[in-house]
Amino acid sequence: MQFLMTAYNLLENKAGYINTGAWSSKALKEAKNFGDAIEVASSKDANFNYIPKNYKVDSNLDYLHITTNNTIFGTQFHDIPEVETNLICDMSSDIFSRQIDFSKFSLIYAGAQKNMGPAGTTLVVVKESILGKVSRTIPSMLDYKTHIDKDSMFNTPPVFAVYTSMLTLEWLKENGGITNIEKKNIEKANLLYDAIDNNELFNGFARKEDRSLMNVTFNLKNQEHKNNFDKLCLEANINGVNGHRSVGGYRASIYNALSIDSIKVLIEVMNELKRTI
Amino acid sequence: MQFLMTAYNLLENKAGYINTGAWSSKALKEAKNFGDAIEVASSKDANFNYIPKNYKVDSNLDYLHITTNNTIFGTQFHDIPEVETNLICDMSSDIFSRQIDFSKFSLIYAGAQKNMGPAGTTLVVVKESILGKVSRTIPSMLDYKTHIDKDSMFNTPPVFAVYTSMLTLEWLKENGGITNIEKKNIEKANLLYDAIDNNELFNGFARKEDRSLMNVTFNLKNQEHKNNFDKLCLEANINGVNGHRSVGGYRASIYNALSIDSIKVLIEVMNELKRTI
Repeated sequence: MQFLMTAYNLLENKAGYINTGAWSSKALKEAKNFGDAIEVASSKDANFNYIPKNYKVDSNLDYLHITTNNTIFGTQFHDIPEVETNLICDMSSDIFSRQIDFSKFSLIYAGAQKNMGPAGTTLVVVKESILGKVSRTIPSMLDYKTHIDKDSMFNTPPVFAVYTSMLTLEWLKENGGITNIEKKNIEKANLLYDAIDNNELFNGFARKEDRSLMNVTFNLKNQEHKNNFDKLCLEANINGVNGHRSVGGYRASIYNALSIDSIKVLIEVMNELKRTI
Repeated sequence: MQFLMTAYNLLENKAGYINTGAWSSKALKEAKNFGDAIEVASSKDANFNYIPKNYKVDSNLDYLHITTNNTIFGTQFHDIPEVETNLICDMSSDIFSRQIDFSKFSLIYAGAQKNMGPAGTTLVVVKESILGKVSRTIPSMLDYKTHIDKDSMFNTPPVFAVYTSMLTLEWLKENGGITNIEKKNIEKANLLYDAIDNNELFNGFARKEDRSLMNVTFNLKNQEHKNNFDKLCLEANINGVNGHRSVGGYRASIYNALSIDSIKVLIEVMNELKRTI
């Protein structure tokens, strides 16, 4: 919904999109209904296994849209682009996972369901000064100004999802806030990426410099070990590590809530596979 | 969102709206962005205290939109209009409360938060044959066809709200289904309306023939009893019976989940007020 709303509210003439995967592709496609939406850069040439760099961003764009973390492909922007237009960001899968210079953004949106709370609500942070500049009529429900004017209660809010998000954020604060969770997330990701790199049976999917701290994607070099590995995972009560069909292989989603102990179980299974071959 | 989506998906030339209160007014206003949306009938002349009847519905309309129950004003359609166009209905506040001839409708929508589950999800039932007939481009997220094609999982579903709705519907089934809850709802409403009509201190707000089984609106004839009545309500642990500011007075929302015992407590307080004067 937010990639629709950003275009509805902000795209008057021309907007740019960095295409780094499924969600940014959808956002770009949707924006084309509202104006000239262009792909400023893309990593589609390598099945989105990297974050594009060294592209030029026209300062005349209404905005540049990026997706900071790409859950399917396991890539992440580690440097936020410096641009002379409004930077709009889908931060759904890495918000509250790391320190970031939030002042660089004109609008941030994030579905709750990764690091914030249960599915069913979305966080939007927007600079009011960028709103009200398009000439089209925006339906009330899709107009960010409506929700600002009504203190986010234009419609009946999804109270359970909002309340649970509050509890999660209180938990985050009590546990040292973003500074502390970022340290833990780096520790978790490093541990797992090291295990992949040091195990000759596996390949990491994403380019090393663009690896995500949230979604670790990797493949077996030799598919004949697949049944064995899947069986060992199952025995260790590891669930949900199958990669998305567009990447194949495996994906460990290691959001804030996942403990380092769970990472260690997966690493132990990877090592066990090596021992049994 | 649904009054926006119905107009987006279905309004090509001209659509009609029966204006019976706040939500149908909003739906009508929003639809005007998409075509010629006309008010076929309205009860605004009497602050929405009745359901319009004996209006003419042009069979050339793309659809007629009604709101079966009006929470603020306490009115309800007891007879569903017979029309020769698509009948579209906001059934948010009385779905699953009574038997109704559902086959009369081409599209029904209902927010979960009254009789179905927690706020945060919406039920839509639509005849597929009415879709795909408008010439505008519909953004994917707002296109009913998208959600049908993707089995309601185009976006991440609000799982808690959906799951809890399932539990509520299972509870409804186990307790005799709609037939049985309708009996209870009629019994509850009759009891309360009789108490209002038989107490000279109170006036019902809605016209008798259009009274809602879900929201009972009533006023004190003499405002000097207000403090007393509010105090008695508070002592009896009755909360949330203040009327909406556009009606004033009192409103008892007596959805499926409210027990008849709670109704009896309110009636007892109304009688107690009479005794103490």
